[in-house]
Amino acid sequence: MADARVLAADVGGTSLRVALVDARGRILARREARTPADGAAGLDRLASLWASLGTADGRAIAIAGAITREDGVLTQSPNLPGWEGLRPGAHVDASAVNDATAAATGEAWRGALRGVDAALLVTLGTGVGGGLVLGGRPWAGRHGAAGEVGHVTVWPDGPACPCGNRGCLERYASATAVAEAAGASDGVAAEQAARGGDAGAVAAFERAGEALGIVLAGVLALLDLEALAFSGGLAGALDLLRPTLEREIHARAFRLVARDVRIVRGALGDDAGLLGAARVALDAAGA
Amino acid sequence: MADARVLAADVGGTSLRVALVDARGRILARREARTPADGAAGLDRLASLWASLGTADGRAIAIAGAITREDGVLTQSPNLPGWEGLRPGAHVDASAVNDATAAATGEAWRGALRGVDAALLVTLGTGVGGGLVLGGRPWAGRHGAAGEVGHVTVWPDGPACPCGNRGCLERYASATAVAEAAGASDGVAAEQAARGGDAGAVAAFERAGEALGIVLAGVLALLDLEALAFSGGLAGALDLLRPTLEREIHARAFRLVARDVRIVRGALGDDAGLLGAARVALDAAGA
Repeated sequence: MADARVLAADVGGTSLRVALVDARGRILARREARTPADGAAGLDRLASLWASLGTADGRAIAIAGAITREDGVLTQSPNLPGWEGLRPGAHVDASAVNDATAAATGEAWRGALRGVDAALLVTLGTGVGGGLVLGGRPWAGRHGAAGEVGHVTVWPDGPACPCGNRGCLERYASATAVAEAAGASDGVAAEQAARGGDAGAVAAFERAGEALGIVLAGVLALLDLEALAFSGGLAGALDLLRPTLEREIHARAFRLVARDVRIVRGALGDDAGLLGAARVALDAAGA
Repeated sequence: MADARVLAADVGGTSLRVALVDARGRILARREARTPADGAAGLDRLASLWASLGTADGRAIAIAGAITREDGVLTQSPNLPGWEGLRPGAHVDASAVNDATAAATGEAWRGALRGVDAALLVTLGTGVGGGLVLGGRPWAGRHGAAGEVGHVTVWPDGPACPCGNRGCLERYASATAVAEAAGASDGVAAEQAARGGDAGAVAAFERAGEALGIVLAGVLALLDLEALAFSGGLAGALDLLRPTLEREIHARAFRLVARDVRIVRGALGDDAGLLGAARVALDAAGA
């Protein structure tokens, strides 16, 4: 079905975005709304936005939370507490996938990871998230909780994380953590300070890159990935993170794997999840 | 081909083992020899052992080293230096796969991981190795170097590892490391001392379990696996490792993932790699 069209949605804590997408990944039409706090109302809103875009050959939702493979229930969604316990896919007759997994899938289809068989997309925002593509397909795991690289331990005795762990990557490499370490109001201000030569801000990015490199070297030992991509607010500062990140990867990962891995910035911005959902819908439709 | 038969081989640093295996995983005949130091001679020896077992519908080799997916070259094989640079599969017209990946595949087919969609097999021997099964299939990565959980960092500033990294899991959880920490001659002596109540030996197993738990919690955050299996010389002491291992997993991994993950001992012993190779051969033959 080279002329297939699918309806995609990306449900985040703030915005609910939908689009009609063709089989080549072109967004033909799109709508956006504020995400309702109540999940059932939100899914009804999503369905009516989709209806306004016309009919399609398949549909899929990317959503900020963990979707259990077996029954499609949304179990862990800190940003959408009013949606937990629902089955978003069943509610609107669509496939459903974690948003970071969808974003990785989108980048692998139409973005910075095109042609890559196995990669991790790391999102550096308020928190640190991630999505995996393995063998060219999204890898979400049994509970839809895979790819959560932000909660891999860097320093076992490090600071407590709201997730319950200590020393999580997120405590060092989120925009929030970098801003705090730099004494800046947010990640953007921290980046500006570092670019202006502020020693504390430079050190905060160096430390974040080091933490990323330690964890990602472990990810490479485990999965022998071809590429690592970065998106989110702090990804624009990848050049500031890269020296210590690459230093740790080369010091810690196997030589051939470290030599060959591509480290890139995501190319699709906010559309990555939407396009990943479209790819999932196309696959489910056999298109 | 329910009546398919395949030839499998498992090439380790010491022994070269071959078998004729049926489609249900029964070993119909087997041969064993010392592994020749020279790879080309070794592969000729393997071919003649196979020939002595008769004809088959497919063949595959499990081998102690990394096999590059693209060209089948054996690149990193510390235990088989005289085999590096060869293309073992092409040499004997067979599929070739890393031995730990094969062992995980074997356990998923006929052993402790039957019915599991995604799991890591951890081998606790002289070193710490590992193999992954994801989506019911072996995951070896681009360089055939995936699953190397022994070289994931636990404590970033820990002791140097011959691999070039610092603080690798292998430095804490191999039989060698546990024996050294326990002041014992080897892993078996360390286990006996711990079972006899020797405080230093008990502490060595607790520390190894802690290191395993820290790393495996990270593996679960990344892959949301259904099971973790242990094989190798120290796997018989899994009960000594388990308290601290499980403590760290429950403290660090996501609640649902930690709750559901099965932690088991491998069931196939030395035949895991051979049976995994047989499964690979059957898949390649479409049987």
